[in-house]
Amino acid sequence: MTTDPRIQASFDRQSMMATLGARLVETGEGSATIAAPILPGAMQQQGFGHAGLTFSIGDSAAGYAALTLIPVTQEIVTAEIKINLLAPAKGDRLIARGRVIKPGRRLIVVSSDVYAQTDGVERHIACLMGTMMPVDL
Amino acid sequence: MTTDPRIQASFDRQSMMATLGARLVETGEGSATIAAPILPGAMQQQGFGHAGLTFSIGDSAAGYAALTLIPVTQEIVTAEIKINLLAPAKGDRLIARGRVIKPGRRLIVVSSDVYAQTDGVERHIACLMGTMMPVDL
Amino acid sequence: MTTDPRIQASFDRQSMMATLGARLVETGEGSATIAAPILPGAMQQQGFGHAGLTFSIGDSAAGYAALTLIPVTQEIVTAEIKINLLAPAKGDRLIARGRVIKPGRRLIVVSSDVYAQTDGVERHIACLMGTMMPVDL
Amino acid sequence: MTTDPRIQASFDRQSMMATLGARLVETGEGSATIAAPILPGAMQQQGFGHAGLTFSIGDSAAGYAALTLIPVTQEIVTAEIKINLLAPAKGDRLIARGRVIKPGRRLIVVSSDVYAQTDGVERHIACLMGTMMPVDL
Repeated sequence: MTTDPRIQASFDRQSMMATLGARLVETGEGSATIAAPILPGAMQQQGFGHAGLTFSIGDSAAGYAALTLIPVTQEIVTAEIKINLLAPAKGDRLIARGRVIKPGRRLIVVSSDVYAQTDGVERHIACLMGTMMPVDL
Repeated sequence: MTTDPRIQASFDRQSMMATLGARLVETGEGSATIAAPILPGAMQQQGFGHAGLTFSIGDSAAGYAALTLIPVTQEIVTAEIKINLLAPAKGDRLIARGRVIKPGRRLIVVSSDVYAQTDGVERHIACLMGTMMPVDL
Repeated sequence: MTTDPRIQASFDRQSMMATLGARLVETGEGSATIAAPILPGAMQQQGFGHAGLTFSIGDSAAGYAALTLIPVTQEIVTAEIKINLLAPAKGDRLIARGRVIKPGRRLIVVSSDVYAQTDGVERHIACLMGTMMPVDL
Repeated sequence: MTTDPRIQASFDRQSMMATLGARLVETGEGSATIAAPILPGAMQQQGFGHAGLTFSIGDSAAGYAALTLIPVTQEIVTAEIKINLLAPAKGDRLIARGRVIKPGRRLIVVSSDVYAQTDGVERHIACLMGTMMPVDL
């Protein structure tokens, strides 16, 4: 599993990812995977991972999937994204897999699926669908 | 400005809010306000607040707005929520104001607006619209 | 109540609006209102108005709200829009009120609320939030 | 290709589908396919299919995908659904393929993809993601 150095460098500048303990696992042509533990400081009121944790890695995975397809003179910002939460965020760690549904010069439509892994078994806990916008650096 | 003790107690159990430095500012009948700084550990790659920060307080404000309207024997979980990002998250602090659009026994439709404050001036940086689900404790 | 001739001309080219019996009621700076009956040919399986009817007028009202703010050399297309359905579409007629939340050169964030009128009383049946994109003619 | 008689009967009660010339093509366990022409009465202002057409068949395909999984004593209503429009609705006909992402007793998360067919070639024009709610008849 390899990661694009450009994506890795951008990821390393996202201090939110470090705060959440997230790391970039893999990038491909129009895809990116992020993994994160469910840290004691990222819980909601019932002791499961906060929706903000699931959203953060799902959004970043989708954004980095888009970043793999645009010129190096551009960055990606999220215009909008929707998350459907399917199950509680509990388990050993979370995996977010982002991919590009439709590339474009002005807008890039993306999706992301987040899974919770427990003893190597994955459970689908969230799906996201959104719009990324390339902006000049 | 006062906060409902029940909402405050639930908020205090969300360790994600503490990690983000967020606090519950006010609750009303079908409304809740959360404020948060933009901490050094909550940035995206350009040095603005991460969408995950904006989402986290926007989602929690909407969820707590819903919690003000349901029996004490129930909790709220987010079924789905969408965020449109309007401007970069930069400034002195962020304010999320959640409110109930439509209460219901099975589903509660909510919205949330997030503002960035700089020198006392507010800028609208995100709007969220979603569905909360009451669940028995 | 008046309508901008430019908006009216565009509306008149939308044959879907004629099929649904919809008419443009009013336009303002960043706002537009559309009314429609619930025709026998626009029902879902339980005899209420189809979500596609509510969506169609909600989306068009939001799009025309955006159109009021852009140069005459441009058109509006919907990039994405989300609808939360709050109550069944039943009554004498539906009213969709669109407005611009955040104007922009590349993207315009909009919302729309749809109401069902019965004996002059309005019931909130749907809310929409979306992104419109100005494109050159 | 076959359709479940229960789904077909519900579809036949949706007068909106007849107005749009849509027909139920196929149903499976957690899936449903709907096809529709782009009728002269279903256009937006530029002469392409209206977003309301694409939405209507996308929403119905997703709803019927959900209906295949619930008891016969229940119906499905759309709680919320989001559509991202990827390309203009033009071509010989539209095909909407709905599927269940996550079944549930209270909520069913669904998605739908809409394609435009021209000379047998399909182009992806929209993706939808939403929440369906089973209700007792």
